[in-house]
Amino acid sequence: MIKQALYIVKIGGNILDNSQALDSFLTDFASIKIPKILVHGGGKIATTLAVKMGIETIMIEGRRITDKATIDLVTMVYGGLINKNLVAQLQSKKCNAIGLTGADAGTIISEKRPIATIDYGYVGDIKKVNGNAITNLIELGFCPIFAPLTADIQGQILNTNADTMAKEIAVSLSGFFDVNLIYCFEKNGVLKDINDDNSFVNQLYISQYQTDKQNGIINKGMIPKLDNAFEAKKEGVKKVVICHAQHLLKYGTDKQIGTEISI
Amino acid sequence: MIKQALYIVKIGGNILDNSQALDSFLTDFASIKIPKILVHGGGKIATTLAVKMGIETIMIEGRRITDKATIDLVTMVYGGLINKNLVAQLQSKKCNAIGLTGADAGTIISEKRPIATIDYGYVGDIKKVNGNAITNLIELGFCPIFAPLTADIQGQILNTNADTMAKEIAVSLSGFFDVNLIYCFEKNGVLKDINDDNSFVNQLYISQYQTDKQNGIINKGMIPKLDNAFEAKKEGVKKVVICHAQHLLKYGTDKQIGTEISI
Repeated sequence: MIKQALYIVKIGGNILDNSQALDSFLTDFASIKIPKILVHGGGKIATTLAVKMGIETIMIEGRRITDKATIDLVTMVYGGLINKNLVAQLQSKKCNAIGLTGADAGTIISEKRPIATIDYGYVGDIKKVNGNAITNLIELGFCPIFAPLTADIQGQILNTNADTMAKEIAVSLSGFFDVNLIYCFEKNGVLKDINDDNSFVNQLYISQYQTDKQNGIINKGMIPKLDNAFEAKKEGVKKVVICHAQHLLKYGTDKQIGTEISI
Repeated sequence: MIKQALYIVKIGGNILDNSQALDSFLTDFASIKIPKILVHGGGKIATTLAVKMGIETIMIEGRRITDKATIDLVTMVYGGLINKNLVAQLQSKKCNAIGLTGADAGTIISEKRPIATIDYGYVGDIKKVNGNAITNLIELGFCPIFAPLTADIQGQILNTNADTMAKEIAVSLSGFFDVNLIYCFEKNGVLKDINDDNSFVNQLYISQYQTDKQNGIINKGMIPKLDNAFEAKKEGVKKVVICHAQHLLKYGTDKQIGTEISI
């Protein structure tokens, strides 16, 4: 069966925090003619507001904990301020955006992360993506814009990792589309030398990744993103790429951009 | 042509601020079998947060002005915190809710209110409701939950009166459905005596309303709501009722509830 192509693009906080880079990215994203989904992360606004509102950042063993005040804050910032402004800006650029969290249209069901040694608080692990609901929205011509929030079946909103959300959506929609999962960030790809942005590898094989991880060559902050990228590829996503946000429009052309994930 | 019935229910801040009343209302709303839309107002949370964040409430000639800090705040609170929690709670009650602002799916286009004597700031007057987009969502089985926000064609989010939004959506969808517009609040209807909640009138005719308005019998705070209600009725909405939120499930039964608007 020939499936239609679908782009799932993830952008992180560094782009959201830079209004000029963001506007340019949104112009590029809006101009993509293929059905598409955007998944966005958080950005610094939540941290800035937390300070303003006297919400303490709780860290346990180096991990951020989402308490009640924090889940309310990120629901406001991710689900409201960031998501709705992205939607309005994309609409002004003729992209028929519709802003969603996993709660909306029952698109993603999650579960509060079980307490093992650490209670992460209101953090969600994704249990199920409703690919039908998302496909229905795409078939109506809408472009879903996902904020990194989901809800459990009791109606509790949960903070959810955007890289993981993009991966889970990509895997679920691979039954309906030829999914291209594109992780956009502020580097040219997976770098051999963290200080040289031109040192990106064109292709990263899982064997190489595992060796690099063991040898400490892969930048620590990249590991969750790359783990998600490799899982996506393993679970049937057609193509997974990690690239610079400003190269999005070169994706799918002859020009080699970013790092393609291979298993 | 026989059109399908559609309920458009509006709830205000007083219900949103009372978690027990809200939960009971949402249970009732979720149980309605007819296609339905919820439009919600603001509530006190925005005001409480404004104080916490040091955002000054600017009033000119007794009217609240929406400056840049305030539009960001209400985008967070109305579009994020309130809307997404309503959606998650309704989903947990088996209502397939999808949270929207007017920006989402291009459902409502507004324009920044022109400056006459007062510059209201980021406040939107509705120019166009995209009834097709909303109908498409309803036909997929989704229940749209609208926050009182819209956007202009330049992508600027604008604060928008929820009563007016409910009316404009009702008028637009009257071409597709037999629309029942139900304004729910914390009184039993339009009261003859503001101190007696049982003094509500079953039916309010426009002639009576105009006389009452001139005589100062109608509570000032009710005038914008009633103006919207009468306009809806004039512009083809099948039935317009103002009633207590806790009587929602009696609507459409033999039992007379609230005040029906007649022209």
